Amino acid sequence: MIPEEEITTIVNTGDDLELHGLYISPDLDIIMYTLAGLVDEEKGWGIQGDTFNCLKILGKYGQETWFRLGDKDLATHIRRTSLMSEGVTLTEVTRRLCWSLGLKIKLLPMTDDRVRTAIRTPIGLIGFQEYLVKRMAQDEVLEIIFEGVELAKPAKGVVEAILDCTGVIVCPSNPLVSIGTILSLKEIRDALMKTNSSVVAISPIVRGEPIKGPADKLMRGVGLKVSAVQVAELYKDFLDVFIIDSIDKELKNEIEKLGVRVVCTNTIMRTQDDKISLAKVAIEALQKASR
Amino acid sequence: MIPEEEITTIVNTGDDLELHGLYISPDLDIIMYTLAGLVDEEKGWGIQGDTFNCLKILGKYGQETWFRLGDKDLATHIRRTSLMSEGVTLTEVTRRLCWSLGLKIKLLPMTDDRVRTAIRTPIGLIGFQEYLVKRMAQDEVLEIIFEGVELAKPAKGVVEAILDCTGVIVCPSNPLVSIGTILSLKEIRDALMKTNSSVVAISPIVRGEPIKGPADKLMRGVGLKVSAVQVAELYKDFLDVFIIDSIDKELKNEIEKLGVRVVCTNTIMRTQDDKISLAKVAIEALQKASR
Repeated sequence: MIPEEEITTIVNTGDDLELHGLYISPDLDIIMYTLAGLVDEEKGWGIQGDTFNCLKILGKYGQETWFRLGDKDLATHIRRTSLMSEGVTLTEVTRRLCWSLGLKIKLLPMTDDRVRTAIRTPIGLIGFQEYLVKRMAQDEVLEIIFEGVELAKPAKGVVEAILDCTGVIVCPSNPLVSIGTILSLKEIRDALMKTNSSVVAISPIVRGEPIKGPADKLMRGVGLKVSAVQVAELYKDFLDVFIIDSIDKELKNEIEKLGVRVVCTNTIMRTQDDKISLAKVAIEALQKASR
Repeated sequence: MIPEEEITTIVNTGDDLELHGLYISPDLDIIMYTLAGLVDEEKGWGIQGDTFNCLKILGKYGQETWFRLGDKDLATHIRRTSLMSEGVTLTEVTRRLCWSLGLKIKLLPMTDDRVRTAIRTPIGLIGFQEYLVKRMAQDEVLEIIFEGVELAKPAKGVVEAILDCTGVIVCPSNPLVSIGTILSLKEIRDALMKTNSSVVAISPIVRGEPIKGPADKLMRGVGLKVSAVQVAELYKDFLDVFIIDSIDKELKNEIEKLGVRVVCTNTIMRTQDDKISLAKVAIEALQKASR
Protein backbone atom coordinates (compact mmCIF):
# COMPACT_ATOMS: atom_id res chain seq x y z
CA MET A 1 0.00 0.00 0.00
CA ILE A 2 1.24 3.44 -0.91
CA PRO A 3 0.00 6.07 1.57
CA GLU A 4 -2.36 8.47 -0.19
CA GLU A 5 -0.36 11.48 0.99
CA GLU A 6 2.56 10.23 -1.11
CA ILE A 7 0.66 10.19 -4.39
CA THR A 8 0.65 13.20 -6.69
CA THR A 9 -1.74 13.33 -9.62
CA ILE A 10 -0.87 15.66 -12.48
CA VAL A 11 -3.98 16.68 -14.36
CA ASN A 12 -4.76 18.04 -17.81
CA THR A 13 -6.16 21.58 -17.82
CA GLY A 14 -6.37 21.97 -21.58
CA ASP A 15 -10.09 21.16 -21.43
CA ASP A 16 -10.76 24.05 -19.03
CA LEU A 17 -13.38 26.48 -20.19
CA GLU A 18 -15.32 29.49 -19.06
CA LEU A 19 -19.10 29.24 -19.15
CA HIS A 20 -21.59 31.64 -17.58
CA GLY A 21 -18.57 33.55 -16.27
CA LEU A 22 -17.43 30.50 -14.29
CA TYR A 23 -14.06 28.80 -14.58
CA ILE A 24 -14.61 25.09 -15.17
CA SER A 25 -11.85 22.51 -15.08
CA PRO A 26 -13.49 19.25 -16.21
CA ASP A 27 -10.53 16.94 -15.62
CA LEU A 28 -9.60 18.34 -12.21
CA ASP A 29 -13.25 18.10 -11.19
CA ILE A 30 -13.86 14.54 -12.31
CA ILE A 31 -10.69 13.34 -10.61
CA MET A 32 -11.43 15.29 -7.44
CA TYR A 33 -15.00 14.00 -7.26
CA THR A 34 -13.86 10.45 -8.01
CA LEU A 35 -11.17 10.43 -5.34
CA ALA A 36 -13.59 12.02 -2.85
CA GLY A 37 -16.16 9.29 -3.56
CA LEU A 38 -18.62 11.90 -4.82
CA VAL A 39 -18.62 11.16 -8.55
CA ASP A 40 -21.82 10.11 -10.27
CA GLU A 41 -20.64 6.66 -11.36
CA GLU A 42 -23.53 6.16 -13.72
CA LYS A 43 -22.99 9.34 -15.69
CA GLY A 44 -19.22 9.17 -15.35
CA TRP A 45 -19.07 12.86 -14.45
CA GLY A 46 -20.53 15.31 -11.94
CA ILE A 47 -21.64 14.64 -8.40
CA GLN A 48 -23.99 11.84 -7.46
CA GLY A 49 -27.58 12.83 -6.71
CA ASP A 50 -27.11 16.24 -8.24
CA THR A 51 -29.96 18.41 -9.54
CA PHE A 52 -29.96 20.77 -12.52
CA ASN A 53 -32.22 23.56 -11.34
CA CYS A 54 -29.77 26.38 -11.87
CA LEU A 55 -29.07 25.25 -15.42
CA LYS A 56 -32.79 25.19 -16.18
CA ILE A 57 -33.12 28.86 -15.29
CA LEU A 58 -29.88 29.72 -17.08
CA GLY A 59 -31.57 28.19 -20.13
CA LYS A 60 -34.56 30.45 -19.52
CA TYR A 61 -32.09 33.35 -19.55
CA GLY A 62 -31.06 32.29 -23.04
CA GLN A 63 -27.82 30.61 -22.04
CA GLU A 64 -26.37 27.46 -23.57
CA THR A 65 -27.00 24.35 -21.52
CA TRP A 66 -25.07 21.69 -23.42
CA PHE A 67 -22.45 21.59 -20.67
CA ARG A 68 -24.43 19.89 -17.93
CA LEU A 69 -23.59 21.80 -14.77
CA GLY A 70 -25.28 20.29 -11.74
CA ASP A 71 -26.25 22.42 -8.76
CA LYS A 72 -23.77 20.78 -6.39
CA ASP A 73 -21.09 20.80 -9.07
CA LEU A 74 -21.66 24.54 -9.54
CA ALA A 75 -20.38 25.18 -6.03
CA THR A 76 -16.94 24.01 -7.19
CA HIS A 77 -16.95 26.38 -10.16
CA ILE A 78 -18.34 29.30 -8.16
CA ARG A 79 -15.76 28.87 -5.41
CA ARG A 80 -12.91 28.38 -7.88
CA THR A 81 -13.90 31.41 -9.94
CA SER A 82 -14.23 33.55 -6.85
CA LEU A 83 -10.76 32.57 -5.59
CA MET A 84 -9.14 32.94 -9.02
CA SER A 85 -10.65 36.42 -9.41
CA GLU A 86 -8.79 37.28 -6.20
CA GLY A 87 -5.57 36.12 -7.85
CA VAL A 88 -5.31 32.70 -6.22
CA THR A 89 -3.65 30.19 -8.56
CA LEU A 90 -5.48 27.15 -9.90
CA THR A 91 -2.98 25.00 -7.99
CA GLU A 92 -3.85 26.66 -4.69
CA VAL A 93 -7.59 26.63 -5.45
CA THR A 94 -7.33 22.90 -6.17
CA ARG A 95 -5.44 22.34 -2.94
CA ARG A 96 -8.15 24.11 -0.93
CA LEU A 97 -11.06 22.35 -2.64
CA CYS A 98 -9.40 18.96 -2.18
CA TRP A 99 -8.72 19.74 1.47
CA SER A 100 -12.38 20.62 2.01
CA LEU A 101 -13.43 17.32 0.46
CA GLY A 102 -11.00 15.37 2.63
CA LEU A 103 -8.65 14.27 -0.16
CA LYS A 104 -5.20 13.17 0.88
CA ILE A 105 -3.88 12.52 -2.61
CA LYS A 106 -2.24 15.63 -4.02
CA LEU A 107 -3.92 16.95 -7.16
CA LEU A 108 -1.88 19.30 -9.33
CA PRO A 109 -3.06 21.03 -12.47
CA MET A 110 -0.39 20.59 -15.14
CA THR A 111 -0.05 24.38 -15.31
CA ASP A 112 -1.37 27.59 -13.76
CA ASP A 113 -1.08 29.23 -17.17
CA ARG A 114 -3.72 29.24 -19.84
CA VAL A 115 -3.48 26.28 -22.23
CA ARG A 116 -6.55 25.42 -24.29
CA THR A 117 -6.99 22.32 -26.38
CA ALA A 118 -8.73 23.24 -29.62
CA ILE A 119 -9.80 20.98 -32.45
CA ARG A 120 -9.66 22.14 -36.04
CA THR A 121 -12.71 20.77 -37.82
CA PRO A 122 -14.48 21.52 -41.12
CA ILE A 123 -16.68 24.01 -39.20
CA GLY A 124 -13.62 25.76 -37.77
CA LEU A 125 -11.49 25.70 -34.63
CA ILE A 126 -13.54 24.72 -31.57
CA GLY A 127 -12.73 24.17 -27.90
CA PHE A 128 -12.29 20.57 -26.82
CA GLN A 129 -15.41 20.43 -24.64
CA GLU A 130 -17.42 21.96 -27.44
CA TYR A 131 -16.05 19.27 -29.79
CA LEU A 132 -16.67 16.48 -27.28
CA VAL A 133 -19.86 17.46 -25.45
CA LYS A 134 -21.74 19.99 -27.53
CA ARG A 135 -21.03 18.42 -30.92
CA MET A 136 -20.62 14.88 -29.56
CA ALA A 137 -17.30 14.27 -31.33
CA GLN A 138 -19.11 14.13 -34.68
CA ASP A 139 -16.84 16.56 -36.55
CA GLU A 140 -13.92 15.39 -38.62
CA VAL A 141 -10.67 16.14 -36.77
CA LEU A 142 -8.18 18.02 -38.92
CA GLU A 143 -5.73 19.20 -36.30
CA ILE A 144 -5.23 19.34 -32.53
CA ILE A 145 -3.89 22.60 -31.19
CA PHE A 146 -2.74 23.46 -27.67
CA GLU A 147 -3.29 27.19 -27.57
CA GLY A 148 -0.91 28.99 -25.23
CA VAL A 149 1.37 26.01 -24.66
CA GLU A 150 4.51 27.83 -25.84
CA LEU A 151 4.18 30.36 -23.03
CA ALA A 152 2.95 27.97 -20.36
CA LYS A 153 5.10 26.63 -17.54
CA PRO A 154 4.30 23.55 -15.46
CA ALA A 155 2.59 24.40 -12.16
CA LYS A 156 4.84 24.55 -9.12
CA GLY A 157 5.48 21.01 -7.90
CA VAL A 158 4.81 19.19 -11.16
CA VAL A 159 8.37 18.80 -12.44
CA GLU A 160 9.60 18.28 -8.86
CA ALA A 161 7.06 15.47 -8.36
CA ILE A 162 8.28 13.71 -11.50
CA LEU A 163 11.95 14.09 -10.64
CA ASP A 164 11.65 13.16 -6.94
CA CYS A 165 9.15 10.30 -7.01
CA THR A 166 9.67 6.57 -6.81
CA GLY A 167 7.68 5.94 -9.97
CA VAL A 168 5.40 7.49 -12.57
CA ILE A 169 2.21 5.91 -13.88
CA VAL A 170 0.78 7.36 -17.08
CA CYS A 171 -2.90 6.48 -16.79
CA PRO A 172 -4.93 4.99 -19.65
CA SER A 173 -6.32 8.28 -20.83
CA ASN A 174 -6.48 9.91 -24.25
CA PRO A 175 -2.90 9.91 -25.59
CA LEU A 176 -3.36 13.02 -27.76
CA VAL A 177 -5.57 15.22 -25.63
CA SER A 178 -5.48 14.58 -21.83
CA ILE A 179 -2.05 12.84 -21.64
CA GLY A 180 -0.90 14.49 -24.87
CA THR A 181 -1.84 17.90 -23.52
CA ILE A 182 0.19 17.35 -20.37
CA LEU A 183 3.12 16.14 -22.48
CA SER A 184 2.83 19.21 -24.70
CA LEU A 185 4.47 21.13 -21.87
CA LYS A 186 8.10 20.65 -22.82
CA GLU A 187 9.38 20.78 -19.26
CA ILE A 188 7.08 17.96 -18.21
CA ARG A 189 8.15 15.72 -21.10
CA ASP A 190 11.78 16.58 -20.36
CA ALA A 191 11.29 15.69 -16.68
CA LEU A 192 9.86 12.31 -17.66
CA MET A 193 12.96 11.64 -19.77
CA LYS A 194 15.33 12.93 -17.11
CA THR A 195 13.87 11.38 -13.95
CA ASN A 196 15.62 8.44 -12.31
CA SER A 197 12.24 6.94 -11.50
CA SER A 198 10.71 4.39 -13.80
CA VAL A 199 7.81 5.39 -15.97
CA VAL A 200 4.99 2.96 -16.60
CA ALA A 201 2.03 3.66 -18.90
CA ILE A 202 -1.21 1.80 -19.39
CA SER A 203 -2.53 1.59 -22.93
CA PRO A 204 -5.87 3.33 -23.46
CA ILE A 205 -6.25 1.39 -26.71
CA VAL A 206 -7.38 -2.23 -26.61
CA ARG A 207 -7.81 -4.26 -29.76
CA GLY A 208 -7.54 -1.12 -31.88
CA GLU A 209 -10.22 0.79 -29.99
CA PRO A 210 -10.24 3.28 -27.15
CA ILE A 211 -11.83 1.99 -23.95
CA LYS A 212 -13.85 5.16 -23.84
CA GLY A 213 -13.92 8.56 -25.52
CA PRO A 214 -13.01 9.68 -29.01
CA ALA A 215 -9.28 8.82 -29.02
CA ASP A 216 -9.79 6.83 -32.23
CA LYS A 217 -11.26 9.77 -34.10
CA LEU A 218 -8.54 12.09 -32.89
CA MET A 219 -5.74 9.63 -33.70
CA ARG A 220 -7.09 8.90 -37.14
CA GLY A 221 -7.74 12.59 -37.70
CA VAL A 222 -4.09 13.48 -37.25
CA GLY A 223 -2.91 10.51 -39.34
CA LEU A 224 -2.03 8.03 -36.61
CA LYS A 225 -2.98 4.38 -36.35
CA VAL A 226 -5.39 3.47 -33.56
CA SER A 227 -3.32 0.85 -31.74
CA ALA A 228 -1.39 0.24 -28.55
CA VAL A 229 1.77 0.22 -30.70
CA GLN A 230 1.03 3.74 -31.83
CA VAL A 231 0.58 4.90 -28.24
CA ALA A 232 3.88 3.27 -27.26
CA GLU A 233 5.46 5.14 -30.16
CA LEU A 234 4.10 8.44 -28.78
CA TYR A 235 5.53 7.72 -25.31
CA LYS A 236 8.70 5.79 -26.14
CA ASP A 237 11.18 8.58 -25.41
CA PHE A 238 10.30 8.50 -21.69
CA LEU A 239 8.60 5.13 -21.25
CA ASP A 240 10.12 2.12 -19.46
CA VAL A 241 7.17 -0.26 -19.27
CA PHE A 242 3.97 -0.36 -21.27
CA ILE A 243 1.03 -2.27 -19.85
CA ILE A 244 -1.25 -3.55 -22.59
CA ASP A 245 -4.31 -5.70 -22.44
CA SER A 246 -3.81 -9.44 -22.59
CA ILE A 247 -6.06 -9.42 -25.67
CA ASP A 248 -3.31 -7.48 -27.45
CA LYS A 249 -0.44 -9.76 -26.40
CA GLU A 250 0.57 -10.40 -30.01
CA LEU A 251 1.68 -6.70 -30.10
CA LYS A 252 4.29 -7.30 -27.41
CA ASN A 253 7.23 -7.94 -29.73
CA GLU A 254 6.48 -5.01 -31.94
CA ILE A 255 6.31 -2.65 -28.93
CA GLU A 256 9.46 -4.07 -27.33
CA LYS A 257 11.30 -3.26 -30.56
CA LEU A 258 10.70 0.40 -29.61
CA GLY A 259 12.83 -0.18 -26.52
CA VAL A 260 9.90 -0.42 -24.12
CA ARG A 261 9.24 -3.43 -21.89
CA VAL A 262 5.70 -4.80 -22.12
CA VAL A 263 3.47 -6.30 -19.45
CA CYS A 264 0.19 -7.94 -20.43
CA THR A 265 -2.81 -7.96 -18.09
CA ASN A 266 -6.51 -7.17 -18.00
CA THR A 267 -6.67 -3.38 -18.44
CA ILE A 268 -10.44 -2.98 -18.76
CA MET A 269 -11.71 -1.68 -15.45
CA ARG A 270 -15.32 -2.67 -14.91
CA THR A 271 -15.27 -3.22 -11.16
CA GLN A 272 -13.40 -1.86 -8.16
CA ASP A 273 -11.46 -5.14 -8.09
CA ASP A 274 -10.41 -4.63 -11.73
CA LYS A 275 -9.08 -1.19 -10.75
CA ILE A 276 -7.17 -2.54 -7.77
CA SER A 277 -5.66 -5.40 -9.79
CA LEU A 278 -4.51 -3.08 -12.56
CA ALA A 279 -3.02 -0.64 -10.03
CA LYS A 280 -1.12 -3.52 -8.42
CA VAL A 281 0.28 -4.63 -11.77
CA ALA A 282 1.37 -1.07 -12.49
CA ILE A 283 3.06 -0.65 -9.10
CA GLU A 284 4.76 -4.04 -9.46
CA ALA A 285 6.00 -3.05 -12.91
CA LEU A 286 7.40 0.16 -11.44
CA GLN A 287 9.19 -1.74 -8.71
CA LYS A 288 10.74 -4.20 -11.14
CA ALA A 289 11.76 -1.63 -13.71
CA SER A 290 14.83 0.46 -13.13
CA ARG A 291 16.59 3.00 -15.23
CA MET B 1 -56.54 48.98 -15.88
CA ILE B 2 -53.12 50.42 -16.52
CA PRO B 3 -51.26 48.43 -19.18
CA GLU B 4 -48.23 46.72 -17.64
CA GLU B 5 -45.93 48.23 -20.24
CA GLU B 6 -46.74 51.66 -18.87
CA ILE B 7 -45.63 50.92 -15.33
CA THR B 8 -42.07 51.64 -14.20
CA THR B 9 -40.85 50.29 -10.88
CA ILE B 10 -37.86 52.01 -9.30
CA VAL B 11 -36.05 49.65 -6.98
CA ASN B 12 -33.64 50.00 -4.06
CA THR B 13 -30.15 48.65 -4.75
CA GLY B 14 -28.62 49.64 -1.41
CA ASP B 15 -29.09 46.06 -0.17
CA ASP B 16 -27.00 44.66 -3.04
CA LEU B 17 -24.10 42.52 -1.99
CA GLU B 18 -21.40 40.29 -3.34
CA LEU B 19 -21.24 36.75 -2.04
CA HIS B 20 -19.21 33.87 -3.44
CA GLY B 21 -18.07 36.31 -6.14
CA LEU B 22 -21.66 36.78 -7.32
CA TYR B 23 -23.52 40.08 -7.53
CA ILE B 24 -26.81 39.76 -5.66
CA SER B 25 -29.55 42.38 -5.77
CA PRO B 26 -32.14 41.19 -3.24
CA ASP B 27 -34.80 43.83 -3.93
CA LEU B 28 -34.60 43.62 -7.71
CA ASP B 29 -34.76 39.84 -7.45
CA ILE B 30 -37.75 39.64 -5.14
CA ILE B 31 -39.71 42.12 -7.25
CA MET B 32 -38.75 40.40 -10.49
CA TYR B 33 -39.68 36.96 -9.15
CA THR B 34 -42.93 38.30 -7.70
CA LEU B 35 -44.00 40.00 -10.92
CA ALA B 36 -43.02 36.91 -12.92
CA GLY B 37 -45.15 34.71 -10.64
CA LEU B 38 -42.07 32.77 -9.58
CA VAL B 39 -41.64 33.94 -6.01
CA ASP B 40 -41.81 31.48 -3.14
CA GLU B 41 -44.88 32.96 -1.42
CA GLU B 42 -44.36 30.97 1.72
CA LYS B 43 -40.79 32.08 2.32
CA GLY B 44 -41.43 35.55 0.91
CA TRP B 45 -38.19 35.40 -1.10
CA GLY B 46 -36.48 33.21 -3.67
CA ILE B 47 -38.09 31.03 -6.31
CA GLN B 48 -40.82 28.50 -5.55
CA GLY B 49 -39.76 24.88 -5.45
CA ASP B 50 -36.11 25.79 -5.29
CA THR B 51 -33.40 23.48 -3.94
CA PHE B 52 -30.26 24.41 -2.00
CA ASN B 53 -27.75 21.87 -3.27
CA CYS B 54 -25.15 24.34 -4.42
CA LEU B 55 -25.20 26.15 -1.08
CA LYS B 56 -24.69 22.84 0.74
CA ILE B 57 -21.45 22.22 -1.13
CA LEU B 58 -20.38 25.87 -0.78
CA GLY B 59 -20.75 25.23 2.96
CA LYS B 60 -18.50 22.18 2.61
CA TYR B 61 -15.97 24.50 0.97
CA GLY B 62 -16.02 26.61 4.14
CA GLN B 63 -18.23 29.38 2.78
CA GLU B 64 -20.89 31.28 4.71
CA THR B 65 -24.40 30.03 4.03
CA TRP B 66 -26.55 32.50 5.98
CA PHE B 67 -27.72 34.11 2.76
CA ARG B 68 -29.98 31.36 1.44
CA LEU B 69 -29.20 31.15 -2.25
CA GLY B 70 -31.40 28.60 -3.98
CA ASP B 71 -30.18 26.71 -7.03
CA LYS B 72 -32.69 28.34 -9.40
CA ASP B 73 -32.11 31.72 -7.81
CA LEU B 74 -28.36 31.30 -8.39
CA ALA B 75 -28.93 31.40 -12.14
CA THR B 76 -30.02 35.03 -11.77
CA HIS B 77 -26.88 35.96 -9.86
CA ILE B 78 -24.58 33.98 -12.14
CA ARG B 79 -26.05 35.56 -15.26
CA ARG B 80 -26.04 39.05 -13.75
CA THR B 81 -22.45 38.72 -12.56
CA SER B 82 -21.32 37.43 -15.92
CA LEU B 83 -22.95 40.32 -17.79
CA MET B 84 -21.72 42.94 -15.33
CA SER B 85 -18.17 41.62 -15.61
CA GLU B 86 -18.48 42.34 -19.34
CA GLY B 87 -19.38 45.93 -18.48
CA VAL B 88 -23.15 45.68 -18.94
CA THR B 89 -24.98 48.02 -16.55
CA LEU B 90 -27.29 46.73 -13.83
CA THR B 91 -30.14 48.51 -15.63
CA GLU B 92 -29.48 46.62 -18.85
CA VAL B 93 -28.92 43.32 -17.01
CA THR B 94 -32.26 43.81 -15.28
CA ARG B 95 -33.97 44.58 -18.58
CA ARG B 96 -32.63 41.38 -20.12
CA LEU B 97 -33.50 39.16 -17.14
CA CYS B 98 -37.03 40.61 -17.00
CA TRP B 99 -37.46 40.09 -20.72
CA SER B 100 -36.43 36.44 -20.37
CA LEU B 101 -39.00 35.96 -17.62
CA GLY B 102 -41.72 37.60 -19.69
CA LEU B 103 -42.16 40.71 -17.56
CA LYS B 104 -43.83 43.66 -19.20
CA ILE B 105 -43.53 46.03 -16.25
CA LYS B 106 -40.31 48.02 -16.47
CA LEU B 107 -37.96 47.42 -13.54
CA LEU B 108 -35.27 50.02 -12.97
CA PRO B 109 -32.57 49.89 -10.33
CA MET B 110 -32.42 53.27 -8.61
CA THR B 111 -28.82 53.62 -9.75
CA ASP B 112 -26.12 51.87 -11.75
CA ASP B 113 -23.57 53.21 -9.30
CA ARG B 114 -22.52 51.56 -6.10
CA VAL B 115 -24.62 52.56 -3.10
CA ARG B 116 -24.51 50.32 -0.04
CA THR B 117 -26.80 50.57 2.95
CA ALA B 118 -24.79 49.96 6.09
CA ILE B 119 -25.98 49.86 9.68
CA ARG B 120 -23.81 51.12 12.49
CA THR B 121 -24.30 48.80 15.46
CA PRO B 122 -22.43 48.17 18.71
CA ILE B 123 -20.44 45.47 16.88
CA GLY B 124 -19.48 47.89 14.09
CA LEU B 125 -20.68 48.91 10.66
CA ILE B 126 -22.34 46.00 8.84
CA GLY B 127 -24.04 45.60 5.46
CA PHE B 128 -27.82 45.71 5.49
CA GLN B 129 -28.32 42.05 4.54
CA GLU B 130 -25.83 41.05 7.19
CA TYR B 131 -27.81 43.08 9.72
CA LEU B 132 -31.15 41.72 8.53
CA VAL B 133 -30.47 38.12 7.55
CA LYS B 134 -27.26 36.97 9.19
CA ARG B 135 -27.79 38.73 12.52
CA MET B 136 -31.61 38.72 12.29
CA ALA B 137 -31.97 42.43 13.08
CA GLN B 138 -30.91 41.78 16.66
CA ASP B 139 -28.27 44.50 16.91
CA GLU B 140 -29.03 47.94 18.23
CA VAL B 141 -29.19 50.42 15.35
CA LEU B 142 -27.00 53.46 15.93
CA GLU B 143 -26.92 54.95 12.46
CA ILE B 144 -27.95 54.21 8.88
CA ILE B 145 -25.38 55.03 6.23
CA PHE B 146 -25.75 55.01 2.46
CA GLU B 147 -22.18 54.44 1.36
CA GLY B 148 -21.40 55.93 -2.02
CA VAL B 149 -24.60 57.93 -2.30
CA GLU B 150 -22.82 61.27 -2.77
CA LEU B 151 -21.23 60.06 -5.99
CA ALA B 152 -24.19 58.05 -7.27
CA LYS B 153 -26.52 59.20 -10.04
CA PRO B 154 -29.97 57.78 -10.68
CA ALA B 155 -30.00 55.13 -13.39
CA LYS B 156 -30.98 56.27 -16.86
CA GLY B 157 -34.76 56.52 -17.05
CA VAL B 158 -35.46 56.94 -13.34
CA VAL B 159 -35.76 60.72 -13.16
CA GLU B 160 -37.46 60.75 -16.58
CA ALA B 161 -40.03 58.21 -15.37
CA ILE B 162 -40.88 60.37 -12.36
CA LEU B 163 -41.12 63.57 -14.38
CA ASP B 164 -43.08 62.13 -17.31
CA CYS B 165 -45.53 59.79 -15.61
CA THR B 166 -49.18 60.25 -14.75
CA GLY B 167 -48.64 59.36 -11.10
CA VAL B 168 -46.17 58.02 -8.57
CA ILE B 169 -46.97 55.42 -5.93
CA VAL B 170 -44.50 55.08 -3.07
CA CYS B 171 -45.08 51.50 -1.94
CA PRO B 172 -45.45 50.49 1.72
CA SER B 173 -41.82 49.53 2.18
CA ASN B 174 -39.24 50.45 4.79
CA PRO B 175 -39.18 54.28 4.90
CA LEU B 176 -35.54 54.52 6.02
CA VAL B 177 -33.89 51.73 4.08
CA SER B 178 -35.63 50.61 0.84
CA ILE B 179 -37.67 53.80 0.18
CA GLY B 180 -35.25 55.93 2.21
CA THR B 181 -32.33 54.58 0.22
CA ILE B 182 -33.99 55.52 -3.07
CA LEU B 183 -34.79 58.97 -1.67
CA SER B 184 -31.19 59.38 -0.55
CA LEU B 185 -30.37 60.02 -4.21
CA LYS B 186 -30.89 63.77 -4.31
CA GLU B 187 -31.93 63.83 -7.95
CA ILE B 188 -34.72 61.35 -7.30
CA ARG B 189 -36.07 63.28 -4.33
CA ASP B 190 -35.83 66.48 -6.37
CA ALA B 191 -37.73 64.88 -9.25
CA LEU B 192 -40.51 63.84 -6.86
CA MET B 193 -40.83 67.45 -5.71
CA LYS B 194 -40.61 68.85 -9.21
CA THR B 195 -42.89 66.47 -11.11
CA ASN B 196 -46.34 67.64 -12.21
CA SER B 197 -47.68 64.17 -11.43
CA SER B 198 -49.26 63.46 -8.10
CA VAL B 199 -47.37 61.39 -5.58
CA VAL B 200 -49.23 58.94 -3.38
CA ALA B 201 -47.59 56.87 -0.65
CA ILE B 202 -48.89 53.95 1.36
CA SER B 203 -47.90 53.83 5.01
CA PRO B 204 -45.77 50.82 5.94
CA ILE B 205 -46.59 51.49 9.60
CA VAL B 206 -49.94 50.40 10.96
CA ARG B 207 -50.89 51.00 14.59
CA GLY B 208 -47.31 51.92 15.43
CA GLU B 209 -45.80 48.77 13.94
CA PRO B 210 -44.29 47.84 10.61
CA ILE B 211 -46.33 45.33 8.62
CA LYS B 212 -43.13 43.36 8.12
CA GLY B 213 -39.42 43.81 8.57
CA PRO B 214 -37.40 45.76 11.11
CA ALA B 215 -38.57 49.32 10.26
CA ASP B 216 -39.47 49.88 13.93
CA LYS B 217 -35.97 49.04 15.12
CA LEU B 218 -34.38 51.24 12.49
CA MET B 219 -36.74 54.17 13.14
CA ARG B 220 -36.28 53.98 16.88
CA GLY B 221 -32.55 53.52 16.42
CA VAL B 222 -32.19 56.84 14.63
CA GLY B 223 -34.51 58.63 17.08
CA LEU B 224 -37.76 58.61 15.12
CA LYS B 225 -41.20 57.65 16.33
CA VAL B 226 -42.67 54.48 14.83
CA SER B 227 -45.89 55.88 13.39
CA ALA B 228 -47.62 56.69 10.15
CA VAL B 229 -47.31 60.37 11.11
CA GLN B 230 -43.54 60.01 11.26
CA VAL B 231 -43.47 58.43 7.80
CA ALA B 232 -45.62 61.27 6.42
CA GLU B 233 -43.15 63.68 7.97
CA LEU B 234 -40.30 61.93 6.10
CA TYR B 235 -42.16 62.17 2.78
CA LYS B 236 -44.05 65.46 3.17
CA ASP B 237 -41.86 67.57 0.88
CA PHE B 238 -42.96 65.57 -2.17
CA LEU B 239 -46.12 63.83 -1.00
CA ASP B 240 -49.66 64.71 -2.12
CA VAL B 241 -51.69 61.87 -0.65
CA PHE B 242 -50.85 59.46 2.15
CA ILE B 243 -52.82 56.24 2.38
CA ILE B 244 -53.01 54.95 5.93
CA ASP B 245 -54.79 52.03 7.41
CA SER B 246 -58.35 52.57 8.58
CA ILE B 247 -57.19 51.43 12.01
CA ASP B 248 -55.09 54.59 12.18
CA LYS B 249 -57.83 56.96 11.04
CA GLU B 250 -57.45 59.09 14.18
CA LEU B 251 -54.03 60.14 12.78
CA LYS B 252 -55.66 61.77 9.75
CA ASN B 253 -55.86 65.30 11.14
CA GLU B 254 -52.33 65.27 12.44
CA ILE B 255 -51.01 64.14 9.07
CA GLU B 256 -53.13 66.60 7.10
CA LYS B 257 -51.56 69.39 9.17
CA LEU B 258 -48.32 68.50 7.38
CA GLY B 259 -50.01 69.55 4.13
CA VAL B 260 -50.65 65.99 2.94
CA ARG B 261 -54.12 64.69 2.09
CA VAL B 262 -55.00 61.41 3.80
CA VAL B 263 -57.00 58.45 2.54
CA CYS B 264 -57.93 55.65 4.94
CA THR B 265 -58.39 52.08 3.77
CA ASN B 266 -57.31 48.55 4.55
CA THR B 267 -53.58 48.50 3.82
CA ILE B 268 -52.73 45.03 5.12
CA MET B 269 -52.37 42.75 2.11
CA ARG B 270 -53.13 39.18 3.04
CA THR B 271 -54.79 38.03 -0.18
CA GLN B 272 -54.57 38.85 -3.86
CA ASP B 273 -57.90 40.68 -3.50
CA ASP B 274 -56.41 42.83 -0.72
CA LYS B 275 -53.59 43.76 -3.07
CA ILE B 276 -55.93 44.64 -5.91
CA SER B 277 -58.19 46.73 -3.64
CA LEU B 278 -55.26 48.69 -2.25
CA ALA B 279 -53.85 49.28 -5.72
CA LYS B 280 -57.24 50.58 -6.85
CA VAL B 281 -57.42 52.98 -3.91
CA ALA B 282 -53.93 54.22 -4.71
CA ILE B 283 -54.73 54.75 -8.40
CA GLU B 284 -57.98 56.48 -7.55
CA ALA B 285 -56.14 58.76 -5.13
CA LEU B 286 -53.65 59.61 -7.88
CA GLN B 287 -56.46 60.45 -10.28
CA LYS B 288 -58.23 62.70 -7.79
CA ALA B 289 -55.12 64.47 -6.62
CA SER B 290 -53.58 67.19 -8.70
CA ARG B 291 -50.71 69.53 -8.16
